[in-house]
Amino acid sequence: MTASLIIAASEVDSNLYYACRFMAPDPFVFLQVGDRTILLMSDLEVDRARQQARVDEVLSLSAWETKAKQRWPQPRLTDTVSLLLEDYGVAAVEVPADFPLEAADRLRERGVTVRARPHPFFPERVVKSAEEVAAIELAQGHTETALAAALDVLSQSVIRGNDVVYKGRPLTSEDLRKVVNVSLMKNDCIAQHTIIACGEQGVDPHNEGTGPIRPNQGIIFDIFPRSSTSRYFADMTRTVVKGKAPDELKRIYDAVLAAQLRGIELVRDGASGAAIHAEVASAMEARGYTTGVVDGRNQGFFHGTGHGVGLDIHELPRISRVDYELKTGQVVTVEPGLYYPGRGAVRIEDMVLVEATGCRKLTRSPKMELLEL
Amino acid sequence: MTASLIIAASEVDSNLYYACRFMAPDPFVFLQVGDRTILLMSDLEVDRARQQARVDEVLSLSAWETKAKQRWPQPRLTDTVSLLLEDYGVAAVEVPADFPLEAADRLRERGVTVRARPHPFFPERVVKSAEEVAAIELAQGHTETALAAALDVLSQSVIRGNDVVYKGRPLTSEDLRKVVNVSLMKNDCIAQHTIIACGEQGVDPHNEGTGPIRPNQGIIFDIFPRSSTSRYFADMTRTVVKGKAPDELKRIYDAVLAAQLRGIELVRDGASGAAIHAEVASAMEARGYTTGVVDGRNQGFFHGTGHGVGLDIHELPRISRVDYELKTGQVVTVEPGLYYPGRGAVRIEDMVLVEATGCRKLTRSPKMELLEL
Repeated sequence: MTASLIIAASEVDSNLYYACRFMAPDPFVFLQVGDRTILLMSDLEVDRARQQARVDEVLSLSAWETKAKQRWPQPRLTDTVSLLLEDYGVAAVEVPADFPLEAADRLRERGVTVRARPHPFFPERVVKSAEEVAAIELAQGHTETALAAALDVLSQSVIRGNDVVYKGRPLTSEDLRKVVNVSLMKNDCIAQHTIIACGEQGVDPHNEGTGPIRPNQGIIFDIFPRSSTSRYFADMTRTVVKGKAPDELKRIYDAVLAAQLRGIELVRDGASGAAIHAEVASAMEARGYTTGVVDGRNQGFFHGTGHGVGLDIHELPRISRVDYELKTGQVVTVEPGLYYPGRGAVRIEDMVLVEATGCRKLTRSPKMELLEL
Repeated sequence: MTASLIIAASEVDSNLYYACRFMAPDPFVFLQVGDRTILLMSDLEVDRARQQARVDEVLSLSAWETKAKQRWPQPRLTDTVSLLLEDYGVAAVEVPADFPLEAADRLRERGVTVRARPHPFFPERVVKSAEEVAAIELAQGHTETALAAALDVLSQSVIRGNDVVYKGRPLTSEDLRKVVNVSLMKNDCIAQHTIIACGEQGVDPHNEGTGPIRPNQGIIFDIFPRSSTSRYFADMTRTVVKGKAPDELKRIYDAVLAAQLRGIELVRDGASGAAIHAEVASAMEARGYTTGVVDGRNQGFFHGTGHGVGLDIHELPRISRVDYELKTGQVVTVEPGLYYPGRGAVRIEDMVLVEATGCRKLTRSPKMELLEL
């Protein structure tokens, strides 16, 4: 009989959290044999797991270690697991692609057949239940509250020469990030690596942004917190300007927005992610915004159009060069961007829920024109 | 020639972050051949990596994929990595114990010898540099500020019957957690799973705590944030009471405190972690606080005495039943606890830096008696 096995800490392993809905900081064992789901937990976690985990049975690791000691003087966790598998008549296990190699090799030494099941380990994770969509929407609502708080600060700031001054001090990316992240924390959402990148910093899509905010330049806000209650992520990006936007930046914005709206229009059950990505890219190219390496640096549109959002911030499906057929119930971002050194950078990102004949927007924050605050 | 290889996202893989000091949310490739360190980065990250990563060379994944396509029509990441290894004359790699199995098996199919190097992958990570200790102390300072903010709220609350009332509303674990976590976020520290467990909830060491705070019962605060700037953790635990502590809880507190002070006294270069743990346990046993399973539930002292703290919240060394020799420059917690259903729970935790003839306390928060607020 083949079974599914995960050894990980559910705090960092979303498959394991999905499988048992139990949060723990240290690695533990999940086993599924047929329909039966089992956890093997340390003394420290076994009582809490029995109360909280959504599994059929929670076994005591120390009790099973005692059994294992009858066979090996100092059994490793994998020895104990091999004994458990033997007890269930399981000779072969499927594990996630990221299952730890050392544990796999040790189980193999004990005669267990270990095979990495191709990603996604739980295919059903890609399609969200109503409960999961509600969790994502709730996190997205808090994300918009946080963005509004930061835009409020920008609105209340004044331009003095090349500085944006708030309460008498030059405003920085770090200041705005704190406003965003504290607002999110007040709503039990944890934001890491929030991007607030002004001017040239925004030209590098993953630059988080540092130092003074400058007037009359693009400011990219990319905010992707995780709810610490539901564990689900949200993800949104907006580009705004404090002061007056240069005409060229406005044109770039309009091109990105048109491409993004076109992308959203194409999202529906059965649509091809690669086809949407190609159409989004060509919508911008048609306006003259080309992509390529110039002076050793990528410029134009050099990332995917979108990705799934759930218990991981980046999960399946993808809307990118690699094809993937979209299905009803998936939650995806649509987030084209253009990045040109010396000219400006814009990214606009919404989350949508794939439906039979289109998609439902999970993002409510406005974006119809380049916001000048 | 044997080389070291990591394929992971540095945001969740501390070895990788330690190796290159570059933060990215998606998996990338780190290779060390002799002293030479190399990253293989996607187009999205390659420019930022060239600016920020502390490695000798950053290679473009897409450029190497182009080479790989001359051999395979649709090269996987592991195919491209195998080509890179070939180019460096590397036939065998050592990888971390938690290296993803699927990637390891695919590299093996391409003829690469892949061996999991026993934990810790970078032995030097266990001993902290002055810069690392400073980062941990800074995070610890913010942790104490956050605790003080929560204790302030408890001080300002009033007892009304079985409730603790703050600003007209019954105070909950969730309220206090928000005070702690928001305070930490204001100092760029991210707290997850902060434990604020009152009364019986504290009897389960990993119960985060929910619902109303009750007077005259123990409240365990276990706070372990990560600095979002340095990426280092801090970790502390205090047990307090709102109102008047029952005599039995005071006695439990005194036993835990005496054991903890004894443990700290024993920490020094060359000390045995297992011996310290045994001494800490017997200090509490000598006062009549026994450990064991009663009515199917663990009670007494059933977790380790301490663990290393660094880029992971739980890392080597351990002060527990598994022996480990402490070394100058390690940062460890000393955190005994006692947990008795129906009687009370106490845990007290400090961080210390192992030194030649003793240890230096990294925690400044007072603990000399059970605080009644």
